Amino acid sequence: MSVTTVSKVLNGRPDVAPATRKHVEAGLARHQYHRRLRRRPLKGHVDLVFHQMNSMWSMEIIRGVDAVATAARIEVVLSQLKGAHRPPEEWLDGVLDHRPLGVLFVLCGPSPPQQQKLRRAQIPFVVVDTDGEIAESVPVVGSNNWDGGLLATRHLLELGHRRVAVVSGPKDVLCSRARVAGFRVAHDEAGLVVDPDLVRYGNFYVDAGYEHAMDLLTRPDRPTAIFAGSDLQALGVLRAARRLGLDVPGELSVVGYDNVPVADWVEPALTTVDQPLCDMATVATQMLLDLARGVEPATSRIDLANELVVRKSTAPPG
Amino acid sequence: MSVTTVSKVLNGRPDVAPATRKHVEAGLARHQYHRRLRRRPLKGHVDLVFHQMNSMWSMEIIRGVDAVATAARIEVVLSQLKGAHRPPEEWLDGVLDHRPLGVLFVLCGPSPPQQQKLRRAQIPFVVVDTDGEIAESVPVVGSNNWDGGLLATRHLLELGHRRVAVVSGPKDVLCSRARVAGFRVAHDEAGLVVDPDLVRYGNFYVDAGYEHAMDLLTRPDRPTAIFAGSDLQALGVLRAARRLGLDVPGELSVVGYDNVPVADWVEPALTTVDQPLCDMATVATQMLLDLARGVEPATSRIDLANELVVRKSTAPPG
Repeated sequence: MSVTTVSKVLNGRPDVAPATRKHVEAGLARHQYHRRLRRRPLKGHVDLVFHQMNSMWSMEIIRGVDAVATAARIEVVLSQLKGAHRPPEEWLDGVLDHRPLGVLFVLCGPSPPQQQKLRRAQIPFVVVDTDGEIAESVPVVGSNNWDGGLLATRHLLELGHRRVAVVSGPKDVLCSRARVAGFRVAHDEAGLVVDPDLVRYGNFYVDAGYEHAMDLLTRPDRPTAIFAGSDLQALGVLRAARRLGLDVPGELSVVGYDNVPVADWVEPALTTVDQPLCDMATVATQMLLDLARGVEPATSRIDLANELVVRKSTAPPG
Repeated sequence: MSVTTVSKVLNGRPDVAPATRKHVEAGLARHQYHRRLRRRPLKGHVDLVFHQMNSMWSMEIIRGVDAVATAARIEVVLSQLKGAHRPPEEWLDGVLDHRPLGVLFVLCGPSPPQQQKLRRAQIPFVVVDTDGEIAESVPVVGSNNWDGGLLATRHLLELGHRRVAVVSGPKDVLCSRARVAGFRVAHDEAGLVVDPDLVRYGNFYVDAGYEHAMDLLTRPDRPTAIFAGSDLQALGVLRAARRLGLDVPGELSVVGYDNVPVADWVEPALTTVDQPLCDMATVATQMLLDLARGVEPATSRIDLANELVVRKSTAPPG
């Protein structure tokens, strides 16, 4: 993703999925117009605040922010909340003191009183949110998780699988439920009934994928395919399959989610839903710089489309 | 590595390898003394400049810098040189303008004239360098690559392997040659002659590991173990083994290098040389903040020790 989808769209490049192009264009159309009218150089820095820094996943975000910031000759100041979803109060004091051009929150965001203080100080903010919670008054860039679940499941059903399990993320995170909803609709479309025992929720890491897969794959009526909630969960599924002596994709198909670089490094390389993290960060940063120039965004929430990347971990059932 | 080795050493924790403790203590002893005498709060930011941002590897560095910066309430400003090893001239103008507390370079560094300008402006800088090139007048934090090569090879020879191949990094990078030198010495110690056909150099990515492994493993006298130059190369070796139907570790042992998080996620989990990237960044940032306080470092180069992490990809030859 060295050239972002957004810049491809802006440059009219043809190698962008129509759905993605539509989303990006819809979100940016009015935007672009304003930008051309009012673009002026900005001086200063933006604050990039992470919920927490995870390997790979965070790096995709940083790359997207960096691309826009470098082009605009803006500095990026990095911080993280060590797992908290709201910045502490002293953080806000620091921001009001340093006066960044704007603040980009990743999987976290200001409380309503903090929002008010930032607005009063005319410091704009944008949230990059993969959970999918709707916050009307805050500009948010996300991705369409329901689509992601639909795409992955359709792919497996089209290959001929009839017992497909899903190991989604934590149940209290909206994106997990959205993906399972997409999974269900793909089954409805195909006239298939979802076996409730095959719908699982867990954390986004290797262990949850491993544990659910060990349980699912040792059932007498084991699934022939598993759709995982992250690429890391999918690695856990691959590990369980290997321990049980099941060939992937010969005896088990596996679909991941995110398309972090490791998805293409493992053997078999993972079929996965490409969540455009880098592009989401690019769009969010561009939106933030627009706000810093006084340009209101056309919409308060932009969801970019996910795409399925088919590699070597999926095949027709054996 | 959420608690860094360095802070473990400072806090007298017992779970640090003696070699690491020695290195850290040697480097920081006088340092610490000065710090206690002269510590005063700093205000401002440090510039963190990457040669380029690679997934995972860069994130380990960022985590180490962030830990020290957060504790000192210092901001971190992120930038990258998109693959260049020297910052461009306009970058220096920006730095002289913004006046950071100091600049931390990762796998890159200022040219001698740039060094002079930074010194004249009293902006200290430290280099995090894994290549191992010696630059006397510049404070550098690295790791001992020769040790890393020795440790990995000793482990394989102790398991009973007698035909061990090495796929190191690019030959023009000093660390690659240092690791091969360690590999040779481990053979010498064991009274074994190195077969020159089993010594390879390539880039640090999956493809180089895959291609060299395909070539090595299809020889009639194939090696029973491969020591790779990075965890990504090791993933390429795992891929080649799987394509050739060779069981790891039953028929082939594999050792990686770096211990990035993915080493523990793949199946089989990789035995690898833990290069303490996060700790290196921690030490370098601490050194930079000391310099910003006017404390000269005790030595101009600190190399942290590498440690072998034994997981599931190595076993006695089948």
